[in-house]
This record gives sequence, C-alpha cells and structure tokens, in this order.
Amino acid sequence: MQIMDPVSIAEALELVKDHWTPRVVGRVNDQYVKVAKLLGELVWHAHDNEDEMFLVVYGHLRIQLEGDREVLLDPGQFFIVPKGVQHNPVAEEEVGIVLIETVTTAHTGSVESPRSVPIERQLPSA
Amino acid sequence: MQIMDPVSIAEALELVKDHWTPRVVGRVNDQYVKVAKLLGELVWHAHDNEDEMFLVVYGHLRIQLEGDREVLLDPGQFFIVPKGVQHNPVAEEEVGIVLIETVTTAHTGSVESPRSVPIERQLPSA
Repeated sequence: MQIMDPVSIAEALELVKDHWTPRVVGRVNDQYVKVAKLLGELVWHAHDNEDEMFLVVYGHLRIQLEGDREVLLDPGQFFIVPKGVQHNPVAEEEVGIVLIETVTTAHTGSVESPRSVPIERQLPSA
Repeated sequence: MQIMDPVSIAEALELVKDHWTPRVVGRVNDQYVKVAKLLGELVWHAHDNEDEMFLVVYGHLRIQLEGDREVLLDPGQFFIVPKGVQHNPVAEEEVGIVLIETVTTAHTGSVESPRSVPIERQLPSA
C-alpha cells in the first residue's frame, strides 16, 4: 500500500511555472486534486458530465457563467461549476487555486484551445 | 439548473457547533465537500473502498496510521488516507478541516462509535 506524504498547497503552487497548466497533486477516489496558477482568461467551455470545483488560495477569481451570471471568489472560497454549465474563468491578476475534478475531465471541455493541456502533462512525472 | 453560491470555508466552519460532526457544504461529482471541527481523538477505523481527504484550515492535525506511522498536518496541508488503511485522527487542540469523501462514506467506517454521525445529520437541512 503506497501512502503518500502530506501535501502543502502553498509549496505545490510554488512549483507551478506556467499559467493555465494544472498539476495533479493528489487523487481522492475518482477525483484529481490539482493546483494551478491563472492569469488572464481561459476559454468558454463546459464539461458535459462532470462538476468542477475551484478553491482560491490567493488572488481573486471571477468565473463567468452562462446566462450573464458570474461569481467572484476570494481566498478561502470555493465554487463548484455544475456539469453542463458553460463557464469561463477570468483572473485579472495572478490567482492560485486548487481544482478538484474527475480524473477523466478535460480542463477546457470539448473546446480545443491553445490553452488545452493534456492530462499527461498535468501529472507529476511530466 | 441549480447553481449554488460560492462558499467561504471560514464562514462554513463558524456555523459548526459540535466537534466530530461534519457538515456537507458542497458536492463535486460523487464526492461530498464537508467542514468539521475536531478535538480529541476519533476512533480507529478504515473505509474499505473509499479514500478520504483531510485539508487543515486551522490548528494542527495528527493522523495515526496503521503500522506505527503517523502524519502531522499544518494549515494549508492535506493528506489522503487511502482506502482500506486503518487511521485515527487526533487533535490535541481544536482543528478546523475540510473533508472530501465519497457520498456513501460512513465517517467512522464500519466501526460504530458514540461519535458516529449518520449522513442525514451532516446535510444542510439537518
């Protein structure tokens, strides 16, 4: 039985070099725990079958949602984008986040974007 | 489509009155996101088929593990107890945590303890 060591979220974020490039730092059941740094905006997309949880560690994240809605997240706040809901994360200044999403979730949904990062590049061995 | 509001972890923890009584504050796919306050020790138990994630918000949490191992978690650190591993959380002073576990997870595993709280009492309507 492989038991992983505890993970410091701040230290894991320090190792992230590129914006919009999530890094897997843990797995709980069928969900990956990832850290990411965001700056600017991603791309409008949805995940047809999977919810996605955003927890802000530092900075302020705006998530635009379909239907002219948006949420603003400060450090220590989280938001879960329900499956099927079009959304677009926007970071006017750098934001550090924890992401929780199903291991099969493509982070830009079915939208191919220059910012799409395949899961192989999000895993620790990458 | 019901879209929940953002959740402040600190504010959710403020609403928790009792130790060892997790409160569900979100659901991402088949996992519940819970907050809990711990003081003292729980009970040795395992979850045969489910991992369990502990993220410390404030305080310091010791998790005793089978095989004379233990981990110490400071604020901002998380640890995932793999399925099947006997463990016992110990909080010498009050600890505030976020828990992520499968919706079907019984928080003391198959061990019946005075501290066992059925999921009905962990949900927001309770």
